[in-house]
Amino acid sequence: MKNDQKKLTEISELGEFGLIDQITKDVKTKHKNTLKGVGDDAAVIDYGNTCSVVTTDLLIEGIHFNLIYTPLKHLGYKAVVVNLSDIYAMNAIPKQITVSIAISKKFAVEHIEEIYEGIKLACEVYNIDLVGGDTSSSLTGLTISVTAIGEANKEDIVYRSTAQNTDIICVTGNLGGAYMGLQLLEREKEIFTANPGTQPKLEGYDYILQRQLKPEARKDMVELLKELKITPTAMIDISDGLSSELLHICKNSNVGCKIFQDKIPIDLNTEKMAKEFKMEPLIAALNGGEDYELLFTLNGNDFDKIKDHALIHPIGHITGQKNGAVLISEAGQAIPLQAQGWNPLKKEKK
Amino acid sequence: MKNDQKKLTEISELGEFGLIDQITKDVKTKHKNTLKGVGDDAAVIDYGNTCSVVTTDLLIEGIHFNLIYTPLKHLGYKAVVVNLSDIYAMNAIPKQITVSIAISKKFAVEHIEEIYEGIKLACEVYNIDLVGGDTSSSLTGLTISVTAIGEANKEDIVYRSTAQNTDIICVTGNLGGAYMGLQLLEREKEIFTANPGTQPKLEGYDYILQRQLKPEARKDMVELLKELKITPTAMIDISDGLSSELLHICKNSNVGCKIFQDKIPIDLNTEKMAKEFKMEPLIAALNGGEDYELLFTLNGNDFDKIKDHALIHPIGHITGQKNGAVLISEAGQAIPLQAQGWNPLKKEKK
Repeated sequence: MKNDQKKLTEISELGEFGLIDQITKDVKTKHKNTLKGVGDDAAVIDYGNTCSVVTTDLLIEGIHFNLIYTPLKHLGYKAVVVNLSDIYAMNAIPKQITVSIAISKKFAVEHIEEIYEGIKLACEVYNIDLVGGDTSSSLTGLTISVTAIGEANKEDIVYRSTAQNTDIICVTGNLGGAYMGLQLLEREKEIFTANPGTQPKLEGYDYILQRQLKPEARKDMVELLKELKITPTAMIDISDGLSSELLHICKNSNVGCKIFQDKIPIDLNTEKMAKEFKMEPLIAALNGGEDYELLFTLNGNDFDKIKDHALIHPIGHITGQKNGAVLISEAGQAIPLQAQGWNPLKKEKK
Repeated sequence: MKNDQKKLTEISELGEFGLIDQITKDVKTKHKNTLKGVGDDAAVIDYGNTCSVVTTDLLIEGIHFNLIYTPLKHLGYKAVVVNLSDIYAMNAIPKQITVSIAISKKFAVEHIEEIYEGIKLACEVYNIDLVGGDTSSSLTGLTISVTAIGEANKEDIVYRSTAQNTDIICVTGNLGGAYMGLQLLEREKEIFTANPGTQPKLEGYDYILQRQLKPEARKDMVELLKELKITPTAMIDISDGLSSELLHICKNSNVGCKIFQDKIPIDLNTEKMAKEFKMEPLIAALNGGEDYELLFTLNGNDFDKIKDHALIHPIGHITGQKNGAVLISEAGQAIPLQAQGWNPLKKEKK
């Protein structure tokens, strides 16, 4: 690796999205059947009758998970689910995964089997075939790289870039829980590190812990949309926090948005935990990440079909690009949304 | 991570292939369109007219490459090529890749750009679309995970498991060069570590260095087979050494094989380097790995079409399973083939 005289740019100066923009800015696709390359939840490849939808995610020890409080089986489960979530976000059905894993000497065969128990359980629950992968040693810690492959008819695929002015913005489930679960685990880890005799206090926090350690992908919602004959105008999964994902939709669709604080769904358990931490639950919902809910936009004509559904929450609407992306607070103030999402490449700067 | 009382099995006891067997032994595919799951160079998914062929490989710093002597651009190029090689080994044409990368703080934006220069060059040379990926920080070193996606008609796809008794065994190009290149680089690294003032002596070794640092995948051979209207009866790429790959074909096809020492193609540069190291070049060819040549079997009827081709070498033939897999030495001795291939998970034991 050369470290020449010329000035080098620290990666933290760009952050993850900046780095991706930088390295992919001149990437052009050549094949007619590559319908979508870089820049959405998944790539789309056209095979005639059916499209294949492909996404991939890395999970790195010490960055994405801490084995002090992450059961290996949950880790395997989550590694699959976070990829399936990207496939559902394209309104496609995941069918296959490959799993690559790099392991250091601290792991025994039994540990790897536990991880694969979780992987296989996720395959069972989501009806997925494990079709390949790679196994390697590593000098330090655990890396899991999953690629998920789904399918959909071309006309059913939903991108980030097709939201229209006046569309209604919806989110599924509730937000901020995974982030509060992480805060709790980090707190208990620190208490334990200071006093190795103590037992972590995790009772009564099941919901937010499950949101963090064993999240689910929104298979049910994609099935429901099909049943209701709704094709969202745009969709993305919420892995980096609501703000960050909304800004992706706005940027890619060349639109603005207005969402309302009092419409953002936050679970009581999330609120309770936030209160304990003297945190604003809204911050967890906007910037927390890892909720793996779906964020989508609907043409007004479809609103009646979903307006009474317990798990689908209209939180605002798409506006013209010049209006920007704003949150209307409970006090009626318009606050510009900012992507402070979960971004470990920038966080490193600290 | 639990480390309970129960006895744990060290991964080195199983090695890479043993571990893969262990964790995938109960993996069954559920979807009709998953034509091939775990157990070949790539998975095969049927989309009606066309099949998609998918493979994935991890490259880990300190295991698969050493940045002391690996130029970052070559590393990016190689990370792509090793995956394309698996697609060609299915007699398919690679069309798309995703690239995930995890980077520690020692890397600057310019370093990542160098890696991507290599990735993009490989995409140019092999006519591939870069369609997605993931970018993450890492606590230690560099990880690159590439997934390659190819396509082929169902009837053209060639598996490892379909070699027939009496088929002719062929390899492309020549073997052992990449391994000798690695030996040279390791030697010069050690000299340099002992005497940081010295310059590495790499002149005149271009061929084996290129085989190690910037290998190519056998696009030309797959195109030639198509041109000659030959469909091999079985095929695999040589990433872990000839012995290991031949044993895969034999095991998966339930056959034996007989190959002849004097037919194994070894380049003069490889021989020269082996002599310098007082090594048997045959060992590099059988067990060295990373040559990314193709190993395939042909029905005797096709033999005439290839017998005079400079880059295709018949090295023996398939036999009945009970005969085992043997090498006939120059002295006429039958030596059982052993998979001592490149296997870092077992090597760790040292």
